[in-house]
Amino acid sequence: MPVVPILVEVLRGSLVESAHRASVVVSDAEGRVRLGLGDTARAVFPRSAVKIVQALPLVESGAADAYGFGAQELALAAASHNGEDWHVATAAAMLARAHRSEADLECGAHWPARQEDCGRLHVAGLKPGALHNNCSGKHAGFVCYACHAGIDPKGYTAVDHPVQQAAKAALEDVFGTVLGVESCGIDGCSIPTWAIPLDRLATGMARLATGQGLAPGRAAAARRIMEASIAEPFMVAGTKRFCTDFMTALGGVAYAKTGAEGVFCAAIPSLGLGIAVKCDDGASRAAEVVVATVIAALLGRSDAPELERFLRPVLTNWNRMTVGGLRPSAELVEAAATLAP
Amino acid sequence: MPVVPILVEVLRGSLVESAHRASVVVSDAEGRVRLGLGDTARAVFPRSAVKIVQALPLVESGAADAYGFGAQELALAAASHNGEDWHVATAAAMLARAHRSEADLECGAHWPARQEDCGRLHVAGLKPGALHNNCSGKHAGFVCYACHAGIDPKGYTAVDHPVQQAAKAALEDVFGTVLGVESCGIDGCSIPTWAIPLDRLATGMARLATGQGLAPGRAAAARRIMEASIAEPFMVAGTKRFCTDFMTALGGVAYAKTGAEGVFCAAIPSLGLGIAVKCDDGASRAAEVVVATVIAALLGRSDAPELERFLRPVLTNWNRMTVGGLRPSAELVEAAATLAP
Repeated sequence: MPVVPILVEVLRGSLVESAHRASVVVSDAEGRVRLGLGDTARAVFPRSAVKIVQALPLVESGAADAYGFGAQELALAAASHNGEDWHVATAAAMLARAHRSEADLECGAHWPARQEDCGRLHVAGLKPGALHNNCSGKHAGFVCYACHAGIDPKGYTAVDHPVQQAAKAALEDVFGTVLGVESCGIDGCSIPTWAIPLDRLATGMARLATGQGLAPGRAAAARRIMEASIAEPFMVAGTKRFCTDFMTALGGVAYAKTGAEGVFCAAIPSLGLGIAVKCDDGASRAAEVVVATVIAALLGRSDAPELERFLRPVLTNWNRMTVGGLRPSAELVEAAATLAP
Repeated sequence: MPVVPILVEVLRGSLVESAHRASVVVSDAEGRVRLGLGDTARAVFPRSAVKIVQALPLVESGAADAYGFGAQELALAAASHNGEDWHVATAAAMLARAHRSEADLECGAHWPARQEDCGRLHVAGLKPGALHNNCSGKHAGFVCYACHAGIDPKGYTAVDHPVQQAAKAALEDVFGTVLGVESCGIDGCSIPTWAIPLDRLATGMARLATGQGLAPGRAAAARRIMEASIAEPFMVAGTKRFCTDFMTALGGVAYAKTGAEGVFCAAIPSLGLGIAVKCDDGASRAAEVVVATVIAALLGRSDAPELERFLRPVLTNWNRMTVGGLRPSAELVEAAATLAP
């Protein structure tokens, strides 16, 4: 097993307080690797970073059109959102189009990410529901796909339900791999998550961004969801979230989606490249710095002031004093420099 | 620099999803190392794991007695608490004894750890204050020490203020090291945090637990705060927190205190041993498993059912399905086996 290098350092004052080891692959749609650091063949659970693929049946089946879903709904179907009011309302509206409701969601409930949004629930004497779950858009998409396809959505989170079988088939096709039972785990929202080699994740992201290697209908659906996510970044995550703010700062030239346990999948359609990141220890803060460093380098924007807060995030304390920050390691900086256009 | 080994694995289904590298030292009060894994000489910011030392001047000066502080107040002075009602009320009462109030705290404010407690603030139309800060007990202790010693507490978080100079002198004495400006960072609550070699942290914890190598007054003060923390574990952290629940499950035979960025300091007074842990990537979840594994082994309780949830914590999802768990790595299990009594 290759030694996975330190790609991100966390400083406090002038000392490195913590460090993160991560693997990263940049690939085109034919699997030509532009950059590979760490354990590039390691099978990783992509978690929420492949929601774009899990949402393909919703579009390919015609359900999205039948229910009149626009860019906001498609972005939400591939989102890990904060549970802010507009996310919740949009997921509810998606379900209503299929004459379904929150009661049909099987993702479980958790409090919204932001205390402001929790506060409104508390003041109203309410608990969070399944619509507040960060995956509610994806689950609304599953329910809508089932209803349009004439499938009973009940039990749609189970691995042998037609909805999950369709999602699995899409993953196998896009990432060019067979997903056996030994690679199956259960995600936070109760659907299966399938371990996929990191390099195949990167290649698949390039395929989604270019349509290369995909059937025409699938290529069109992928392009539509990716463009929707880039056009509506608030729906993909929300206020003060990396995916939302980074895609916004890039001005629409890249797609980036987080997954739990330090995973990131991203793509730059204009370059025909896909990117996949796995932080060994599962830290999102490090995966974010890696994906930002690689994308900034590929775009020739490593010194762009508007990207500085993603490349070298500052750490502040409860009194808003600057106490440290994150930075790409020398090894990552050196490797990224080879990507310059 | 020694290679730091993987000591904790995170499983999803049957696959290792993430892994944590950590260093750990078990030492007696004279610096004889019973166990050393990883980079045992590395200087680490101990953060909140040495609050017991920072609270020594409060007791040594006579302030704690003058203000009538019992075990709960002393435990809170060395706590990283949840900001639950009783934590907040106790910190406020400590300040009131010195005719001071929340306005004198310089730690900054943040929301309580538990949504239940946030909810009560929201319903009352309130924002959290400095008393809700997880460090408010420590800061109340600083203010009380200053007032009793005739020092103006204003500015007590600054590195050159007499309060921080007293805390620094206690750290240097207990851990047997000189803390130069190059080892100074700023903590989340704005006081200085000083980088200290991991092996010295372990030796110092053994000194605190035994009194060996400390002046009599300091030894008595250390024993008093450690015994208070063991006797009042709720005050050290709070509901569903590792420090509270682990010390409770151990039935009073060990002291354990978390610090941010994957640090843990602990001690077993009856064995005269101190323990220090630093997870490379800063993950508390891994530091907890390491400290639990080492303490259980030292006590001959590695198979104790009541400790299972600390040694091999189960991961559940939003529907409360078991999806995976944490476990000590084979290397850690093997090393811990050598510690059996």
